[in-house]
Amino acid sequence: MLKQPIKIESNLIIRNAVETDCDDIMRLINELAVFEKAPDQVRINSQTLKQDGFGEHPLYTCLVAEDTSSSPARVVAIALMFNVYSTWEGKCLHLEDLYVQVDYRKRGIGKALFAATYQIAVETNCARLNFSVLDWNSNALDFYKSFGAVDITEKEGWHSVRVTRKNMELQLEKWKK
Amino acid sequence: MLKQPIKIESNLIIRNAVETDCDDIMRLINELAVFEKAPDQVRINSQTLKQDGFGEHPLYTCLVAEDTSSSPARVVAIALMFNVYSTWEGKCLHLEDLYVQVDYRKRGIGKALFAATYQIAVETNCARLNFSVLDWNSNALDFYKSFGAVDITEKEGWHSVRVTRKNMELQLEKWKK
Repeated sequence: MLKQPIKIESNLIIRNAVETDCDDIMRLINELAVFEKAPDQVRINSQTLKQDGFGEHPLYTCLVAEDTSSSPARVVAIALMFNVYSTWEGKCLHLEDLYVQVDYRKRGIGKALFAATYQIAVETNCARLNFSVLDWNSNALDFYKSFGAVDITEKEGWHSVRVTRKNMELQLEKWKK
Repeated sequence: MLKQPIKIESNLIIRNAVETDCDDIMRLINELAVFEKAPDQVRINSQTLKQDGFGEHPLYTCLVAEDTSSSPARVVAIALMFNVYSTWEGKCLHLEDLYVQVDYRKRGIGKALFAATYQIAVETNCARLNFSVLDWNSNALDFYKSFGAVDITEKEGWHSVRVTRKNMELQLEKWKK
């Protein structure tokens, strides 16, 4: 979480997301999923985001970039993150989504959100920032590498593995027999 | 967290870790890091594990397998996990480490810990279980795939990217100038 909003331009700020931003956050998550060629993989909605991020035990926090010149003010970019744990280095920050809507690009918003994420990671004593990038998204990879990021799949051979809930349920049934 | 311990053999159980297990958990984390050819990358100690897992805001939970036939009982395997968040599917579980010490292998302990992890993921309404495997560790990959896991680095091209705290601090300095 930011201690105070960050000004990018006179009418453009970065601030902590609040519950009423969830419709906008969901819109931007969906736009990013289209770009990542997986729009059908989005199964949550803004109600899920409200429950999961703004209840008693928040599962994530989010920064938003807001254009205050439009009325009402308009959320135009997000950085959604949460803490994870490394058994080698302790507390880390994971950046799940960083996205700027198309008509607000080339104004430094992505960089400002990424810088704010670094600031949060350092201030909250995180050993690392982690995130995932699709291998064909070389623009994103180059952007992150230019700010000190290392592709540890490429460098060290770490692969991401996943089990869906359905496959876990099927396997649990098999183990019962 | 398990609601109750699981019996594997008459003198071998799986239970939730408690604070006094942290020395044993740390020993097994170090053994796994040696196997993963990265012993010098372990920077935390058992005190860190105590603070981070057993304070007011735990950053992880852990299952241990315990041999109750030795006196005192002996922790011989661990499964360390925490919740993460998918902006596509909501709450997920991440398995950070699953490790069985060498002299307790081939007794189904790894499988029992993995099954307990599935059980926790399903019971706590997680959409997925995520973890990372080194590409040369084909034994582990085959083990996980036989239980329904999919390598999404291989299948979809997701790469893991990381920025160290030092690189974040250096970059923040550059941005200030």
